[in-house]
Amino acid sequence: MLEKLKQAVLEANLELPKRGLVTYTWGNVSGIDRERGLIAIKPSGVPYDSLTIDDIVLLNMDGEVVEGNLRPSSDAPTHVYLYKYFLNIGGVCHTHSRWATSWAQAGMGIPVYGTTHADYFYGEIPCTRDLTKEEVESAYEANTGKVIVETFENLDPIAIPGVLVKNHAPFTWGKDAAEAVHNSVVLEEVAMMAFHCREITHMPEPAKQYILDKHYHRKHGSGAYYGQ
Amino acid sequence: MLEKLKQAVLEANLELPKRGLVTYTWGNVSGIDRERGLIAIKPSGVPYDSLTIDDIVLLNMDGEVVEGNLRPSSDAPTHVYLYKYFLNIGGVCHTHSRWATSWAQAGMGIPVYGTTHADYFYGEIPCTRDLTKEEVESAYEANTGKVIVETFENLDPIAIPGVLVKNHAPFTWGKDAAEAVHNSVVLEEVAMMAFHCREITHMPEPAKQYILDKHYHRKHGSGAYYGQ
Amino acid sequence: MLEKLKQAVLEANLELPKRGLVTYTWGNVSGIDRERGLIAIKPSGVPYDSLTIDDIVLLNMDGEVVEGNLRPSSDAPTHVYLYKYFLNIGGVCHTHSRWATSWAQAGMGIPVYGTTHADYFYGEIPCTRDLTKEEVESAYEANTGKVIVETFENLDPIAIPGVLVKNHAPFTWGKDAAEAVHNSVVLEEVAMMAFHCREITHMPEPAKQYILDKHYHRKHGSGAYYGQ
Amino acid sequence: MLEKLKQAVLEANLELPKRGLVTYTWGNVSGIDRERGLIAIKPSGVPYDSLTIDDIVLLNMDGEVVEGNLRPSSDAPTHVYLYKYFLNIGGVCHTHSRWATSWAQAGMGIPVYGTTHADYFYGEIPCTRDLTKEEVESAYEANTGKVIVETFENLDPIAIPGVLVKNHAPFTWGKDAAEAVHNSVVLEEVAMMAFHCREITHMPEPAKQYILDKHYHRKHGSGAYYGQ
Repeated sequence: MLEKLKQAVLEANLELPKRGLVTYTWGNVSGIDRERGLIAIKPSGVPYDSLTIDDIVLLNMDGEVVEGNLRPSSDAPTHVYLYKYFLNIGGVCHTHSRWATSWAQAGMGIPVYGTTHADYFYGEIPCTRDLTKEEVESAYEANTGKVIVETFENLDPIAIPGVLVKNHAPFTWGKDAAEAVHNSVVLEEVAMMAFHCREITHMPEPAKQYILDKHYHRKHGSGAYYGQ
Repeated sequence: MLEKLKQAVLEANLELPKRGLVTYTWGNVSGIDRERGLIAIKPSGVPYDSLTIDDIVLLNMDGEVVEGNLRPSSDAPTHVYLYKYFLNIGGVCHTHSRWATSWAQAGMGIPVYGTTHADYFYGEIPCTRDLTKEEVESAYEANTGKVIVETFENLDPIAIPGVLVKNHAPFTWGKDAAEAVHNSVVLEEVAMMAFHCREITHMPEPAKQYILDKHYHRKHGSGAYYGQ
Repeated sequence: MLEKLKQAVLEANLELPKRGLVTYTWGNVSGIDRERGLIAIKPSGVPYDSLTIDDIVLLNMDGEVVEGNLRPSSDAPTHVYLYKYFLNIGGVCHTHSRWATSWAQAGMGIPVYGTTHADYFYGEIPCTRDLTKEEVESAYEANTGKVIVETFENLDPIAIPGVLVKNHAPFTWGKDAAEAVHNSVVLEEVAMMAFHCREITHMPEPAKQYILDKHYHRKHGSGAYYGQ
Repeated sequence: MLEKLKQAVLEANLELPKRGLVTYTWGNVSGIDRERGLIAIKPSGVPYDSLTIDDIVLLNMDGEVVEGNLRPSSDAPTHVYLYKYFLNIGGVCHTHSRWATSWAQAGMGIPVYGTTHADYFYGEIPCTRDLTKEEVESAYEANTGKVIVETFENLDPIAIPGVLVKNHAPFTWGKDAAEAVHNSVVLEEVAMMAFHCREITHMPEPAKQYILDKHYHRKHGSGAYYGQ
């Protein structure tokens, strides 16, 4: 069932190696059918070049397998958690892409240094707090979702569609699986350029708020007119 | 009409992904027919791998569409502005290429550290001032052209065929669309090497003026004799 | 003889250029048949694109050639030494991969900054001491094995399947030749990200011990449940 | 005439784009027939993908064209100078490869931080002094050769087969055109790793002299036994 969703999730997963975002199986993408409350996600440990639509696993909102012969990605509880609390998202992507992960390991959010960032992320891409020992030792993957949601307590996950999990790696999301991956690609570019920007000036000023407003709003919302 | 110009502009745009200068649709190239006062430019938001000659949009010098079914690149007003004030250029290229954009985000011009730079850019590749809130909030893209032209008040845009727009990204130009792209490729190399040069010595001396003179003039102007 | 082992060692060697870990012939992989005490290893100086199964050399545990017309890799005595002292390993891989070698040249071990590291290496990836003049001047390659083994005096080579040889380059190992190469690929990613992590924060805190415990143990040992 | 030499020089030139060492036509390779005193070199400004054996230009030791319809590379006088003074070399290669050029622009030689360097270059890869105004303004390309030769006054160009020309880029050489290119590839790797080594430790110690001796001599000269 949900062949169209599974196909979209398959294609979104296959985009990861094409875009250079994953080594081996270090990534996973999911998509959700909100009406039925079912999530399609990459199976655990299957290499991208042998992945087929029949490998995609369907989960319910409790993270239980509803269809599929393989185990879901071990990060599935994080995906499920995000779908539960970020009600307007339709896809989630997780990778260990090199530049974004470097920032995550450093425990720092990525400031808005330029318009490439502002075109997609309306503000700093935040980094979560440390998980506690207890959060790591039991229900670790669900708790990873929990600290992400906590990080967005005063932020709009639609306006800032991604996060760095401290000492771990990025998660991004979007209206569907393809957009979640798109945002991971953008995050990686933004992370690379923010890194070098800081090396050049050491204390770069973030872009002015009105630049951020202009770039984000010319591309998003009712007044949008942007494409390159 | 202007099939030859549109073909040249198409090819110049397709060169961007081949040279690794763009992610998704983050770039646009245009060319001008000075006699007719018509500009051929990439349409907005069309992926490079499906771009055809019929997608290329023709604009007049007021930025109005004269031919084409698609919207022109949203950066079109910047291109038009540059053609109006830089009377000897025939092509304009805009990308968010990684290394040049890192410098733009840092708000710093790229000093002449070596002959690769001097072969193409006769002096520092400048970075514009900040746009004001007013300049951003109305006619933003035309005002981007305005601050570029202002930056060249005492500079020759033929001798320095490129600029970094602060917190944004580079624009380059040339005698035609192909040369504008060529200069973007060179700028990216120069930006990468200038970055690492500064990391190695922290306070590198710019190349001596006579090196700059020699390299620029052995390749440009009546005494040119250079090719590798 | 041992055609299956030789085939596996051939394939593991061919993986090195595919993964971008080697320039020219700067790498070598071996595998061991513990029962027979025989090691299959890349021959010396043969380019990867002309390497065939018949080129693979078989050595005994004294490093003597038992089968094969070519000389074994000059690093063979290091491989032999590691097999003698690390009794549970089945494959060894040596490269001069760029990021790991940069750390080796700096003489620094790679701290655990994140979960990508913790998924594969249960603690800092150590760097050996300097070899002495005497160790370099005679039996240099065997002594390279000796300082590696010395470095693991209080470490478990199964839990930390790799090392940086000071001023030289990395060695990794695993249950077979393929896993040894896999660990070299991971090491290179980890080295790249650790480098940038340190540039971002200058004094990054290593990941907490309970993160390391969780990530290593959810992937290794009896309680393992991890795949992405 | 000298078809074999021209073929070798053609192939060596074509290796440059394959190895990622050149952008556009930013490089040139030559080879010499010592008996006849004739040099085969890339023509000026011809793109690599249209280069054929008939384009290769033959020069005598005064730099005069002996055969060929195209102009020789504008760097030809540097090549000629090197052949005149470095009597044991048979090939010369010049590129603007990114990492080596970054060091050249910084005006710094590359210290021996590791064995990859020591395997090919028996000591620091030196950087030339500045050319004077007079040296740049007349016979610039020959004077580039002159400052290279001056840099090797107390160095053996066979043991250190490459140099960084200050604010410019590297030249390498070898027993023939292919080896000259091989050394440019190695130099680029070494330059990349030396850069990152210095970033990691800020004041890295060069590798010990006995490491340099061992690595260089196990690969070069009568006692050589090395291949990987």
